[in-house]
Amino acid sequence: MKGNVIVGQSGGPTAVINSSIAGVYRTAIDRGARKVYGMLHGIQGFLDEKYVDLSDHIRNDLDVELLKRTPSAYLGSCRFKLPEIHEDRDIYEKIFRILDKLEIEAFIYVGGNDSMDTIKKLSDYAIVTGHDCKFVGVPKTVDNDLALTDHTPGYGSAAKYIGTSTKEVIRDGLALTYDKEQVIILEIMGRNAGWLTGAAALARSEDCDGPDLIYLPELTFDVDKFKKKVGELLEKKKCVVVAVSEGIKVADGRYVCELSEGIDSVDPFGHKQLTGTASYLASMLAAEFGCKSRAIELSTLQRSASHLASRVDINEAFQVGGAAVKAADEGETGVMVILERVSDDPYQCATAVKNVHKVSNVEKLVARKWINKEGTYVTEEFLDYVRPLIQGDYPPVMVEGLPRHLFHNNKW
Amino acid sequence: MKGNVIVGQSGGPTAVINSSIAGVYRTAIDRGARKVYGMLHGIQGFLDEKYVDLSDHIRNDLDVELLKRTPSAYLGSCRFKLPEIHEDRDIYEKIFRILDKLEIEAFIYVGGNDSMDTIKKLSDYAIVTGHDCKFVGVPKTVDNDLALTDHTPGYGSAAKYIGTSTKEVIRDGLALTYDKEQVIILEIMGRNAGWLTGAAALARSEDCDGPDLIYLPELTFDVDKFKKKVGELLEKKKCVVVAVSEGIKVADGRYVCELSEGIDSVDPFGHKQLTGTASYLASMLAAEFGCKSRAIELSTLQRSASHLASRVDINEAFQVGGAAVKAADEGETGVMVILERVSDDPYQCATAVKNVHKVSNVEKLVARKWINKEGTYVTEEFLDYVRPLIQGDYPPVMVEGLPRHLFHNNKW
Repeated sequence: MKGNVIVGQSGGPTAVINSSIAGVYRTAIDRGARKVYGMLHGIQGFLDEKYVDLSDHIRNDLDVELLKRTPSAYLGSCRFKLPEIHEDRDIYEKIFRILDKLEIEAFIYVGGNDSMDTIKKLSDYAIVTGHDCKFVGVPKTVDNDLALTDHTPGYGSAAKYIGTSTKEVIRDGLALTYDKEQVIILEIMGRNAGWLTGAAALARSEDCDGPDLIYLPELTFDVDKFKKKVGELLEKKKCVVVAVSEGIKVADGRYVCELSEGIDSVDPFGHKQLTGTASYLASMLAAEFGCKSRAIELSTLQRSASHLASRVDINEAFQVGGAAVKAADEGETGVMVILERVSDDPYQCATAVKNVHKVSNVEKLVARKWINKEGTYVTEEFLDYVRPLIQGDYPPVMVEGLPRHLFHNNKW
Repeated sequence: MKGNVIVGQSGGPTAVINSSIAGVYRTAIDRGARKVYGMLHGIQGFLDEKYVDLSDHIRNDLDVELLKRTPSAYLGSCRFKLPEIHEDRDIYEKIFRILDKLEIEAFIYVGGNDSMDTIKKLSDYAIVTGHDCKFVGVPKTVDNDLALTDHTPGYGSAAKYIGTSTKEVIRDGLALTYDKEQVIILEIMGRNAGWLTGAAALARSEDCDGPDLIYLPELTFDVDKFKKKVGELLEKKKCVVVAVSEGIKVADGRYVCELSEGIDSVDPFGHKQLTGTASYLASMLAAEFGCKSRAIELSTLQRSASHLASRVDINEAFQVGGAAVKAADEGETGVMVILERVSDDPYQCATAVKNVHKVSNVEKLVARKWINKEGTYVTEEFLDYVRPLIQGDYPPVMVEGLPRHLFHNNKW
């Protein structure tokens, strides 16, 4: 490389997105880039000319290792969709002015669907205007809903956290159910795609029954059937555990969390507020069966728990970052790096690149055949797909009993 | 020892309570006990004659190691307060009949305040009736609210989890606050004692600002002052993080989570339900400042996350279990094992025993001097006390990417 590289992060954080930044940085330096910039808060901060020289922050090999273990977007993230070129040409001109000023040869963007849309638009604009900056996307999302790639970095670590936490929550639940039945509802991220929720099934193993029921957003949720199912289970066991996606919907298209609309739809401050999916269902079951019930939302913990990251995931995140720089250096633009599963046993994955036009704005959902007939669990095939992604640990560097992250200037 | 030993678990689970069972089992066997029984679901299951021979379940050294890494009460727990002797003598006669049948020489009970009350009543009864079974309590509670002991096993691991998760949640929050302020409220266990909530301050370190405000239940919560404080912080920073105890109360004695009473006090199924403390405050701040806000409850995850247990905690839990058997074997009864801090630097702790009459039904709260003047944070002295308890790891035995626990028959 002769010029400079700039990298940015976009969309929801993950436990391993910073490993991709480390991969970009390392490969860019190895290939001779003069400077590697990091845009702050993605394209949104870039438009305000907010960026840093990464070598001021990644000063040595230990920093690289710490960055790989630092959760959430080190450079800050954004949710910002570029307008179409015909809608606002000025914004594009501004972006390219800044790119020219910084002598950027490769623009690398780490993110999900919206980020790939950004890569698509910028690379299209560059081609049309004859600009030779290369634009390459790096996949990242806990939701695992990106098309073409076998899976997305970030998903494996979140799945490992969800599997582990589900096991621990089930153990906890069993302890205090002697004379009164209990239902525990775990609410897991994923508005439209059930990849994360399905990962709760990983808890089913020789030493744990796993959750009893799992509901993905890919299928319509039937409240009556659900109640019946839980009722049947409560005849047989004292502690019933259900994993639900935050995005499950009933037949008329409403989210389950919208079913509480009416008297409770207003919070104490007069604002419309949705009860969580899990807490709605937990209240419903307590009323129906007179059992104890508990709603547990895994919240942002599930996407940022780098202390329990999967080694496969951290390494792949690093790898796709590096592959993006290599692709740009070799002249590719308007592409996203993907992971191709070469073999399941032993698990092997290789990187490749795909035209970003085929990726952006397409959501990859869990296939119907990977959900059981009743729609209440994922299949063994689903688990065979996920299991390789949660293997191995990347133990935190512990300082004074807590994981150390790479120092971060909170003022960014 | 010549006779048999029985051990039970009571109260809320912890990540290390099973390490105490392992300690009891090992020491009892080492000291010549013929059989070591485990009562299922504590004294409540014992009254139904539900118990197991632990040697059927702990078959070798690997099982001991797995048990030490298994969260929640392996034998099942209960919340059951024995009646006073004069209220129901029959129940005592029944207990002692079963003890005699099983030839029990030492009755070990692992738990918190209520469990020590059980030890007190049973040992009193034995002394009065001339029965020579010994009754010894083993401290356990994530809440750390037991009197006389420097701290309770279970607390250190929960504190380590809370510190780690708080760091990760803060990182996550920083990523997506560029153009809009955000407040994150973390709700942490502890109805009356703020030991766990204070542990959120562990997140404040070279690489993290830590939470901005911490509110313990020991002090009255002033809603107006809180709003003012958050408002001031939002002038200075974009992401404000607050840790609150689930048990904070306002001046008139109501819990903060009860302030939403009125229109929203009824769930969609007509049942009175309290909004969580964090979600009440998050709604309030969003309404007040027009900022984003997010409520995160650490829920049962914080007490059962054995995957992040503290080595000091696991080892001390094992140690107090062993010390209880030794005490009983040496003729002590009506005592609880305590941990005495011998030195802070280097941290050293030794076991001793104390009369259980001095322990039961006394809650140890965070001292006023360990909370700052304004009541919005814990002091360095608080952190000096906690830090030694979260040191070291006890890495899970990973099988197929997830922590392995000791097999547990869910039918118990």
